[in-house]
Amino acid sequence: MRNPQLNKNGELQHLLTLDGLPRDVIVSILDHAAPFTEVAEREVKKLPLLRGKSIFNLFFENSTRTRTTFEIAAKRLSADVVNLNVSTSSTAKGESLLDTIDNLCAMHADMFVVRHAASGAPVLIAKHLQAAGRDHIHVVNAGDGRHAHPTQGLLDMYTIRHYKHDFTQLTVAIVGDVLHSRVARSQIAALNTLGVPELRVIAPKTLLPAEIEKLGIRVFHDMSEGLKDVDVVMMLRLQNERMSGALLPTPQEYYKVWGLTEEKLALAKSDAIVMHPGPMNRGVEIDSAVADGSQAVILPQVTFGIAVRMAVMSMLAGQ
Amino acid sequence: MRNPQLNKNGELQHLLTLDGLPRDVIVSILDHAAPFTEVAEREVKKLPLLRGKSIFNLFFENSTRTRTTFEIAAKRLSADVVNLNVSTSSTAKGESLLDTIDNLCAMHADMFVVRHAASGAPVLIAKHLQAAGRDHIHVVNAGDGRHAHPTQGLLDMYTIRHYKHDFTQLTVAIVGDVLHSRVARSQIAALNTLGVPELRVIAPKTLLPAEIEKLGIRVFHDMSEGLKDVDVVMMLRLQNERMSGALLPTPQEYYKVWGLTEEKLALAKSDAIVMHPGPMNRGVEIDSAVADGSQAVILPQVTFGIAVRMAVMSMLAGQ
Amino acid sequence: MRNPQLNKNGELQHLLTLDGLPRDVIVSILDHAAPFTEVAEREVKKLPLLRGKSIFNLFFENSTRTRTTFEIAAKRLSADVVNLNVSTSSTAKGESLLDTIDNLCAMHADMFVVRHAASGAPVLIAKHLQAAGRDHIHVVNAGDGRHAHPTQGLLDMYTIRHYKHDFTQLTVAIVGDVLHSRVARSQIAALNTLGVPELRVIAPKTLLPAEIEKLGIRVFHDMSEGLKDVDVVMMLRLQNERMSGALLPTPQEYYKVWGLTEEKLALAKSDAIVMHPGPMNRGVEIDSAVADGSQAVILPQVTFGIAVRMAVMSMLAGQ
Repeated sequence: MRNPQLNKNGELQHLLTLDGLPRDVIVSILDHAAPFTEVAEREVKKLPLLRGKSIFNLFFENSTRTRTTFEIAAKRLSADVVNLNVSTSSTAKGESLLDTIDNLCAMHADMFVVRHAASGAPVLIAKHLQAAGRDHIHVVNAGDGRHAHPTQGLLDMYTIRHYKHDFTQLTVAIVGDVLHSRVARSQIAALNTLGVPELRVIAPKTLLPAEIEKLGIRVFHDMSEGLKDVDVVMMLRLQNERMSGALLPTPQEYYKVWGLTEEKLALAKSDAIVMHPGPMNRGVEIDSAVADGSQAVILPQVTFGIAVRMAVMSMLAGQ
Repeated sequence: MRNPQLNKNGELQHLLTLDGLPRDVIVSILDHAAPFTEVAEREVKKLPLLRGKSIFNLFFENSTRTRTTFEIAAKRLSADVVNLNVSTSSTAKGESLLDTIDNLCAMHADMFVVRHAASGAPVLIAKHLQAAGRDHIHVVNAGDGRHAHPTQGLLDMYTIRHYKHDFTQLTVAIVGDVLHSRVARSQIAALNTLGVPELRVIAPKTLLPAEIEKLGIRVFHDMSEGLKDVDVVMMLRLQNERMSGALLPTPQEYYKVWGLTEEKLALAKSDAIVMHPGPMNRGVEIDSAVADGSQAVILPQVTFGIAVRMAVMSMLAGQ
Repeated sequence: MRNPQLNKNGELQHLLTLDGLPRDVIVSILDHAAPFTEVAEREVKKLPLLRGKSIFNLFFENSTRTRTTFEIAAKRLSADVVNLNVSTSSTAKGESLLDTIDNLCAMHADMFVVRHAASGAPVLIAKHLQAAGRDHIHVVNAGDGRHAHPTQGLLDMYTIRHYKHDFTQLTVAIVGDVLHSRVARSQIAALNTLGVPELRVIAPKTLLPAEIEKLGIRVFHDMSEGLKDVDVVMMLRLQNERMSGALLPTPQEYYKVWGLTEEKLALAKSDAIVMHPGPMNRGVEIDSAVADGSQAVILPQVTFGIAVRMAVMSMLAGQ
């Protein structure tokens, strides 16, 4: 099957996953994002690129935080934005996902930003649009199940490039609950595509997917070993529902072994950057001293995230 | 009492119900809607007709789907739109419906789009505005109890006119739960006003209002008889709450007798169109083969619905 | 500690409380609001003063009514507005208040409109911004716990000035549940600052804060005495949760003693105005005959409230 997120000319048609997205497309998105960081500094943070376009934030799973990033990005591009929390509406009335999509297409939607608890929902929508020949309507995956969170992965790449410039010289460690993390999946795909020579994951065995080594990853079960001499530390959020699950000891015990403290961070290179997709559990996966410390680039990630989303949206639907 | 939805000059002041709305007003709305279907095809789907107007979507009953159609229509007309889900706010604080309205009027509202579980709520609001001499503020009924859903009825008329041109030559059948349906009430009123010579309803006796024959309707309790040689089949949604009620057998049994299948549809004219207000219960009132078939005009109904709502809003409050 | 709501030049940096806000700043806001009342009368209620600005309505406590006033005010100033009901999102995910703020700052927020159940939350946010040197980001308190509701207090002052012109000649009575009311705190602060010579509160002992006389207030426990010859009657809302509490008898008994009836109002000056912050409990703290009577200025309060909020927002963040 052809990669459904590229059109016949190899241009971005949808943004569904970073897995399989060609290097030049990823680089092109990062390049497009750069000027948008300057827009945010202006007195009037507004561009007419998506004026008169209708963007639907389709959140089948609640996430005010992620919805907000897409909403503000779209509004700064002058789009008309409609938020739909679908869990409480059509689905409850028994309308199927694809009937909902067909209806919004009939309203002349230009773009769907989709968050869904089920892995693959945005891909399903994209294939449905493709089958119907609706090539002028675009899908952006805003996080689906354990599958992918590509705009998060892209803003992470933007951040790394901003601070470290050359991916091909880096050692990067991803720390935490890789097993349940769509963020980690998107990060791993992009880091591999962009040529990071040493990619590590550091996690307890219970929070690692099977056969992860096959992705070209070095696996560590010890923070001291795994963090040694890395350039980039990418922390993952520990989901609340995991904390109370059987996979883990208490948050306090998790913190003792896997939490990123200044002491552990000292094992990384002295100019290593610390990243986190947010929202953080301070005192669980990360210590406040690190989160607020000089090596943290967690807030720049958010800033770059708006620019990356503006870039993706304008590449997909801009005039 | 004077028809509260027309002003002294017989022009549209509010859109509350299609019952009693003069033929020339209905036709005028359909005529106004036509050019708006072209706006939706443009690169920039935006007109300045309601720029600087304040439209309040007052949803006392949750309906993301209907709210979305009004919201996108208003935004394409450049209005400022504020969504209020009132069930969870003022009403909970004991504020009366009319106090809420007075407050929003004091904020210089230009239009209220009202969805309410109680039949008559939008009429009550319109009369209240009239009594206060607030003739510059308009009410659009977005569905009230079992009473009316006039924009749905109008988009249905637009759809029929688009495909069948002349109402005075048609046989039209409405199928399903007429008893509880505000959609059916609005359809019947408009079809009668527009001169449809043969209007049928097909439903089990338990889902029919008393004395419906008095509305000039032929009643059928058998799909094969009722669908024979019709030009237009208008399916109704079977509400979930009815399915579990005492009025009906199981959804499966309902489907067997009343569901629209290709076999049953074959009894209608070969160029009959199939309509549904959505959201559909596939496999209950309608078979997927029909819903997605060549005679279905269900998605065009949605498209025309945006144009009709833009027409109503701009006729009421446009410059 | 320096008043965190003023910058080094004594200009408004945040609007957090009316307590301690200098007289000239209050008067300046009221003066700025006046022309905005005319904007609301225009055909196109829209000014470009906040074009390209990002305003976040951060409602940690649900209030559709107050959120609506800020949303419509911001939209009429052409701002990009994003609504966040935070109770159901980040906080639920364990993100702290200040992490949420930092995230939104990183998205280049220009203003936060904050409603919070905890007294002091907006002050905490303002101090956090100040400590981080983010002087270009502004906070407007939209009601915090029992502490303050400054835009309500300001619109009340606007209303009194509109009808009575000179604060220094007035006798003003605040009636009802002063103990739990952030509105009353803001009113008392502003009325004292603006030089009202006789300020009264009329309330049962159980609904009065301790040592309220120290604020320069005359306390009455009897409506007949307290309302005698007043120029302005400011009713307070009786919170539903108080009604069922141990502090009070039934709503009916409360009404008999403390409800504002025409009979009791007759004790005030014949041209006294009656105010209420809404939403009203008709038949509890106020009789409908008074609420809808010729002396009530309750709806003008709402109208002036939009103008006052436009004034505050444009003074804080306008070009």
